[in-house]
Amino acid sequence: MIIVHHPQEGARYIVALAAALPGEHVIAADDAPDGSDAYFVCWQPPAGFFKRFAAPRAVFVLGAGVNHLLARNDLPPHVPLIRLTDAGMASQMIEYARYGVLAWQRDFDRYRAQQAEQRWQVLPAVARSEVRVGVLGLGEMGGHVAAALAADGYRVSGLARTARDIHGVRCLSGAGALEALLGGSDVVVNLLPATAETRHLLNERTLARLPRGAALVHAGRGSQLDEDALLAALESGQLRFALLDVFADEPLPAGHPLWTHPRVTVTPHVAAQTMPADAAAQIASKLRQLARDEPVAGLVERTRGY
Amino acid sequence: MIIVHHPQEGARYIVALAAALPGEHVIAADDAPDGSDAYFVCWQPPAGFFKRFAAPRAVFVLGAGVNHLLARNDLPPHVPLIRLTDAGMASQMIEYARYGVLAWQRDFDRYRAQQAEQRWQVLPAVARSEVRVGVLGLGEMGGHVAAALAADGYRVSGLARTARDIHGVRCLSGAGALEALLGGSDVVVNLLPATAETRHLLNERTLARLPRGAALVHAGRGSQLDEDALLAALESGQLRFALLDVFADEPLPAGHPLWTHPRVTVTPHVAAQTMPADAAAQIASKLRQLARDEPVAGLVERTRGY
Repeated sequence: MIIVHHPQEGARYIVALAAALPGEHVIAADDAPDGSDAYFVCWQPPAGFFKRFAAPRAVFVLGAGVNHLLARNDLPPHVPLIRLTDAGMASQMIEYARYGVLAWQRDFDRYRAQQAEQRWQVLPAVARSEVRVGVLGLGEMGGHVAAALAADGYRVSGLARTARDIHGVRCLSGAGALEALLGGSDVVVNLLPATAETRHLLNERTLARLPRGAALVHAGRGSQLDEDALLAALESGQLRFALLDVFADEPLPAGHPLWTHPRVTVTPHVAAQTMPADAAAQIASKLRQLARDEPVAGLVERTRGY
Repeated sequence: MIIVHHPQEGARYIVALAAALPGEHVIAADDAPDGSDAYFVCWQPPAGFFKRFAAPRAVFVLGAGVNHLLARNDLPPHVPLIRLTDAGMASQMIEYARYGVLAWQRDFDRYRAQQAEQRWQVLPAVARSEVRVGVLGLGEMGGHVAAALAADGYRVSGLARTARDIHGVRCLSGAGALEALLGGSDVVVNLLPATAETRHLLNERTLARLPRGAALVHAGRGSQLDEDALLAALESGQLRFALLDVFADEPLPAGHPLWTHPRVTVTPHVAAQTMPADAAAQIASKLRQLARDEPVAGLVERTRGY
């Protein structure tokens, strides 16, 4: 049995999984009996979600982040958590980052402000080769995004925990690398995984390292950004604009100042959505590997946190 | 002597041209004496601009359009008008179109509307391969844009006056081609040159051919779009949004409803600006060809209009 939990797209996943796994019984979590002994396919299951079932045989995680599945009391530590390798997500993350970088390069934010004043004024053109992009995190997502933006013709640097080698990308790691990267980035694209070390990594001190008038594209994890520091940096002109997909509290609470700031774009955690058909094909393949006791790509190392 | 006229970037062009042409006297139009016998480098010179000079030896046109230099009474018809072949413009036009296509594909317009209502709602992801882009005009600009968007992974069709062959692009021409192209385009990118035949090509009847909820990226010439029909199509929901770089009247007059429509983005004719260094290198090379009486690429055929 495969139990599916997804608040919006559950029906699409059930159809896709049933098609990819003809012999399996695929069912929505709400329709599954108590005590069911099953594999799970989940997108951010709420606290206590797993309590009424037998310990899952494995949990396939939709979406890039797994931190909401660590350190919870309804999931025994021996349950394998399996991330999907990509499922169309890197391709979407490239699009999201590209949109933010294009907005900075081509002054779409400034032209929007001019439009509000009905002001017709040409700003000098900036070539791609003049735009310095800094990518935080060079993993599954960040590595693809950095490579794609470099191929687009931007000047791309990237930050990783360990040394990396990506064609066309200046890869930094180690002590002082974050400050060096921020100091030379017109646009910062944050795609770091959530770990204890990255909490409020983007704060008053680090945002001040950016050249004045830089932009932030933030699609890692909400906990990595000090939102008060962001608002202050926007107010002072240190940041030109921010494109935000993740937040300390999700959904972003009504009345939060980020909703209404004129130089903030809010998207509801959609920078990289899992595509049902891609995900179903991957899950089918990983289930076969599990059945044959073969190594499964994407198995989460709980101590590392991703 | 080389006389430069550019309302905003004159100084940048003079520096770039002086560097590319060490032997030549390069001077701003305002500083040039009456009766000067010179080559001209111009961006949209106003009516009567050429009257106080001798007939130009040639006019190098900055920007993609030349229609403002045809049918005017201060420029004898024997004066060669020379367009620059590209000078970084196609690359910029690709960026501009890509931004508009990304906005439609990734629902940035809808998320902006949701943000105004502080509404957190995920919209289903759409893959690039599902987005149908129609490019009007497959010349210097449109051909490059169509090829680049096809390489990005979009489903691209293009319309040209005569049959074209562009890798990955379905090229249409002839009777009924416009209607066929519009009928299958989620995003229309207009990059046609201005000719008598294209006046109000985008009107109530042709905009109605688009699938409901399509978007318009308009960077050809202002005369090609019936702006009243556009506003009506936005109001009815036929069009989701419009990204507009060119207008019937430029600068767009204060108080014009396009300035304030929430689903219209106005940019001040900057989709493809000429880059001074690129332009100067091209002009230097073309001047040498003229001096040797060799054919010069970009020479405008006045009867054709581009």
